[in-house]
Amino acid sequence: MSTLGTLFRVTLFGESHGPGVGAVVEGVPAGLTVDMEAMKRELARRRPGQSKVTTQRKEEDEPEFLAGVAHGAATGAPVTIFIRNTDVDSRPYDATKDLPRPGHADFTAWAKWGIARDHRGGGPFSARTTAPLVAAGAIARQMLAGVRIAAHVVEIAGIEVPHEVAFDQIGKAEANPVRCADAKTAELMEHAITRARTDGDSVGGIVEVRAEGLPAGWGGPGADGLESELARALLAIPACRGVEFGAGFRAARMKGSEHNDAFDVDKAGHVTTRTNHAGGILGGISTGMPLVARVAFKPTSSLPRKQDTVNLATMKPAVVETKGRHDPCVVPRAVPIVEACVAVVLADAKLRAAAERR
Amino acid sequence: MSTLGTLFRVTLFGESHGPGVGAVVEGVPAGLTVDMEAMKRELARRRPGQSKVTTQRKEEDEPEFLAGVAHGAATGAPVTIFIRNTDVDSRPYDATKDLPRPGHADFTAWAKWGIARDHRGGGPFSARTTAPLVAAGAIARQMLAGVRIAAHVVEIAGIEVPHEVAFDQIGKAEANPVRCADAKTAELMEHAITRARTDGDSVGGIVEVRAEGLPAGWGGPGADGLESELARALLAIPACRGVEFGAGFRAARMKGSEHNDAFDVDKAGHVTTRTNHAGGILGGISTGMPLVARVAFKPTSSLPRKQDTVNLATMKPAVVETKGRHDPCVVPRAVPIVEACVAVVLADAKLRAAAERR
Amino acid sequence: MSTLGTLFRVTLFGESHGPGVGAVVEGVPAGLTVDMEAMKRELARRRPGQSKVTTQRKEEDEPEFLAGVAHGAATGAPVTIFIRNTDVDSRPYDATKDLPRPGHADFTAWAKWGIARDHRGGGPFSARTTAPLVAAGAIARQMLAGVRIAAHVVEIAGIEVPHEVAFDQIGKAEANPVRCADAKTAELMEHAITRARTDGDSVGGIVEVRAEGLPAGWGGPGADGLESELARALLAIPACRGVEFGAGFRAARMKGSEHNDAFDVDKAGHVTTRTNHAGGILGGISTGMPLVARVAFKPTSSLPRKQDTVNLATMKPAVVETKGRHDPCVVPRAVPIVEACVAVVLADAKLRAAAERR
Amino acid sequence: MSTLGTLFRVTLFGESHGPGVGAVVEGVPAGLTVDMEAMKRELARRRPGQSKVTTQRKEEDEPEFLAGVAHGAATGAPVTIFIRNTDVDSRPYDATKDLPRPGHADFTAWAKWGIARDHRGGGPFSARTTAPLVAAGAIARQMLAGVRIAAHVVEIAGIEVPHEVAFDQIGKAEANPVRCADAKTAELMEHAITRARTDGDSVGGIVEVRAEGLPAGWGGPGADGLESELARALLAIPACRGVEFGAGFRAARMKGSEHNDAFDVDKAGHVTTRTNHAGGILGGISTGMPLVARVAFKPTSSLPRKQDTVNLATMKPAVVETKGRHDPCVVPRAVPIVEACVAVVLADAKLRAAAERR
Repeated sequence: MSTLGTLFRVTLFGESHGPGVGAVVEGVPAGLTVDMEAMKRELARRRPGQSKVTTQRKEEDEPEFLAGVAHGAATGAPVTIFIRNTDVDSRPYDATKDLPRPGHADFTAWAKWGIARDHRGGGPFSARTTAPLVAAGAIARQMLAGVRIAAHVVEIAGIEVPHEVAFDQIGKAEANPVRCADAKTAELMEHAITRARTDGDSVGGIVEVRAEGLPAGWGGPGADGLESELARALLAIPACRGVEFGAGFRAARMKGSEHNDAFDVDKAGHVTTRTNHAGGILGGISTGMPLVARVAFKPTSSLPRKQDTVNLATMKPAVVETKGRHDPCVVPRAVPIVEACVAVVLADAKLRAAAERR
Repeated sequence: MSTLGTLFRVTLFGESHGPGVGAVVEGVPAGLTVDMEAMKRELARRRPGQSKVTTQRKEEDEPEFLAGVAHGAATGAPVTIFIRNTDVDSRPYDATKDLPRPGHADFTAWAKWGIARDHRGGGPFSARTTAPLVAAGAIARQMLAGVRIAAHVVEIAGIEVPHEVAFDQIGKAEANPVRCADAKTAELMEHAITRARTDGDSVGGIVEVRAEGLPAGWGGPGADGLESELARALLAIPACRGVEFGAGFRAARMKGSEHNDAFDVDKAGHVTTRTNHAGGILGGISTGMPLVARVAFKPTSSLPRKQDTVNLATMKPAVVETKGRHDPCVVPRAVPIVEACVAVVLADAKLRAAAERR
Repeated sequence: MSTLGTLFRVTLFGESHGPGVGAVVEGVPAGLTVDMEAMKRELARRRPGQSKVTTQRKEEDEPEFLAGVAHGAATGAPVTIFIRNTDVDSRPYDATKDLPRPGHADFTAWAKWGIARDHRGGGPFSARTTAPLVAAGAIARQMLAGVRIAAHVVEIAGIEVPHEVAFDQIGKAEANPVRCADAKTAELMEHAITRARTDGDSVGGIVEVRAEGLPAGWGGPGADGLESELARALLAIPACRGVEFGAGFRAARMKGSEHNDAFDVDKAGHVTTRTNHAGGILGGISTGMPLVARVAFKPTSSLPRKQDTVNLATMKPAVVETKGRHDPCVVPRAVPIVEACVAVVLADAKLRAAAERR
Repeated sequence: MSTLGTLFRVTLFGESHGPGVGAVVEGVPAGLTVDMEAMKRELARRRPGQSKVTTQRKEEDEPEFLAGVAHGAATGAPVTIFIRNTDVDSRPYDATKDLPRPGHADFTAWAKWGIARDHRGGGPFSARTTAPLVAAGAIARQMLAGVRIAAHVVEIAGIEVPHEVAFDQIGKAEANPVRCADAKTAELMEHAITRARTDGDSVGGIVEVRAEGLPAGWGGPGADGLESELARALLAIPACRGVEFGAGFRAARMKGSEHNDAFDVDKAGHVTTRTNHAGGILGGISTGMPLVARVAFKPTSSLPRKQDTVNLATMKPAVVETKGRHDPCVVPRAVPIVEACVAVVLADAKLRAAAERR
């Protein structure tokens, strides 16, 4: 589908209803023992069918190494991961081949590739393609010793976490199916998702991701900047509609005197900032403060209800009713994907910074 | 600084207080007669010193072609544009060499490059480096016959345009110094900026950009998608903190049944959508509907007031007072830069689509 | 291992004794029906064990599509090809893990990746990794309608084809195991290879490749030139030591008046040249005349005889005796690989030229 | 024209008769004080008009830093070098605008870019464009502490240096205008060039380049290999027709037992090889032995005599007589260009290896 990174380089491939999905991962240090438990744990977090608020499609998501790993360790050559599609039921898609689902890439895939496109289950536009990204992210995290990356849901269906969540509290989000660190808000979110499912509807939300432990100096100016690289990766996640860093869109309403983070020196003699409106990045380069980004996801486009569309074979108005199994809300499952994007981009930034070491 | 694009490829270089700024632009079609009036008009729109709400630095911004243009037309070889820095006064920066300005890349440049960095005027992090991007954007626009790109300010200092602006009304934004299409709101914004200047403070805001006339089918899935490419370019603009497409962060609060754009057929037999919450992009590929993005800018970080910082030579707390000439609000000047980013990304997408023509 | 191309982009992965070898192939036009017979025919040409002059390793080389192909046709998404390693016998390599074979990448793999490298059968340096390149080349050839690419052996063990071979006679090379178009020379070459095998030795040789039917205007100046792109691809073939275009090294001994190809107009009104010392490329761009390149291969480095080496564990002098199954001469099997390289580079050049169409 | 490298990245621009030629050089370490004397010395070596065996065009070749250098040292941002064309006389080219010179890119530039091409003096195909490459190479050499790169002419007009030249004798080549390390052979070569000039003809030759002091482990497998990267760069030099590494084409005639370099341990405990037929590279990765490559150059295509061509305006046969000032032999001037290519590729390999440091 596309390649992320320069030195730590991830090339994704695969479709929802083809044989499987995978990634060629270049730049994995020779000798790194792949932590299979960690990789499977991340894949399990992304996997559908985990609870009643997610799709019922069952995928084993068993990562297979096609290359680059021998006796459990990276050899230095490109690591190729393949995850076979096991629970593929393409039949619901055959009847709707010519009926693009509103809000979905069905239409644009047709506009670009014509009848040759793989229409089944969203083909290469399916969230299924993020599974190998999550696997690559697990390797990236191993390469980022000292850096902790954690994401959580801060808003679903307009229901917001009412306070900032401390970094070491983010883990609490894993305790509930919506991945919100605040238990009370999580209940409300879960309720909203359940109601949307009952209504044959869907809801969207926002994921916040933070990374602690980065040194100052990773990244670069202009389009080599961390914001640019992160935004490119995050906006490649299906359903993502926006990305902001630090105070983000809220920064647009602040005064400079309010937004600027005053510099200070900590006890260890490192430069820090008293506040972190910058979200850990100034001019595309890490400040050493926590990296903070927020990622907006639209409501799932596939809905189990009749929607107006056009029959691409006849070019006449038509109605489409999606019968596949779909999440009424993709946001909780986006959490490990967002983390993976951040890990992949930071692992590349780390290697690049190593090349610049004076 | 960095390179944008694959076939239409823009490599930027230059610093605020060095000899000048420039771009190597590959992929300009041989024979294209560069519209110098248009290029200078765009540069003039970006230029500082235009009104009392912008910095008083005066730059001629006279683009010089170092290569790739003969007798006014592109030869096929890389077009190299150079814009000399003329009104450079580096003296205000010498006293503050070791005093990073809060909110600015001064500190991260030091973290990455040490004392070798060019500290004067923000060096390669200066908005000055967007001048050649605007020049490249002017060429990109010439390559995009039939596509119209227009940006305008929709929010400054929390003051929002109260209604959606029709595409053919966006031009009105050029009539006032804040580049807001609604004259009444523009006045309020201008007042807010003036007040910020008086207070030795600064304000931020939001630019909306739209592109009409794109065919369906430009772009690609995953990180080759238009959102990814656009976000990468836009987040490379100094002071940009967030990007959203279509309904953007607002989409996170919508229901699927509300957000999904129903398909329809227009009189010409083209597939359209009744609404455009997708902002003209589904799955990274253009739908043929207007492309819509919104870009958040933080308040200018350089402030003419005392701010707490750290002396990087002594690692002791210190105070910095910025004496350079700076905009109290960069948002109006960001308008042509945002347009240039969009033009550069779309020109590349157009060439790539041409290579895929069946 | 590496990526070739910009729009038609081939990313190779895999090792000799791992699960298999493969390629992610981007830029395959949607709707292209993969000619499986042609692909298997090309793979069969590369496959070992075909005759007594090649290694006895047996590989089925059954290409499997992991992605990008549905119902036999390309969908537009990246085509991922996987070829499982079936006849893997790694035991001969275990004893010699610390004993790098002279002339082989065993030592440099250790220098780069340490003990983590996959030492079995050359790992990612094995000629085995060219199988997916040949498969990608088969797709590239389908994209190059009107362009015919043919390679043949022109020298083995110092035995040269005594005359230039007409393009339509190159096919004769497939009639004999050494792939030399001149039957008499082929016999001598075969004899030389057999003798080398008997002696526990190996021999090298030269492959010539030609491409007819290219239009003028593909390629570009400088490092975007066809020579640069072709040389990069060809020198990635294991055992390749040199590449020349047109008159090549012989051109260094010619006078300008002799080497320059005078221009002429053919009956169809196209510009041609009377001679073709340029090998169909001037300044990196195709002239429309046949593309001609010659590629030198060293003798196989793995020899079934004792050779002096160093024990990398003890850093003491040692002796290594290679027990694996190896070709005494790789040159005949290089023929389809060389053709694949040329096809891959030209398919990319064709797409890039399409994007530039005025 | 094109970009070389991944981390140390050189993007060239410019034409023979435009304002000038230049390069954007990314990856120069912050703080590196550019050795201007060394850069000018290298440019002087490449400069025409140095002796009676080279073209009489006079160029000052004064490198100007447009960006990335402050107070003589690299700032970390892209270093942009510009070299103005001073002695440009385009008049000789006007009369021959439609008459492509045989052996030159005039025709293919027309085929690709039509009448828009810059026909004057070869435009972007001119050897003039190698001046900024040589400047970038001078910076690369500064980054390669401990690595010595030296090239010399080993053959002109069929006259070969009769023996191998020891590394520390290569410098002697600078003592004569043909840059051949053997004084007696140099005289013969010079005579051959003078005779060619008298005859209105030209001659070609071969440059050998060696690099000593590389550690083992730089480079990578496949198309990331040093041979691939070097060949890509070297074949971008105008008039280059072939490249070989180590024993090169001669390896094709050797037996494996003869060609394989036996491993040994030196007194310092490093692995070495007794011979160096591999030219310091095995499997794309440096062995630590001297890197050796040979580069073939064709005779200059521009000749001061009548040659048959086609008038591109009328498509009728015609005769062209080149009136510009040209070298009867480009080979001596290619020596510093070849060295620059090697330096640029190795500087990139060094940075990449640094990123992989375990």
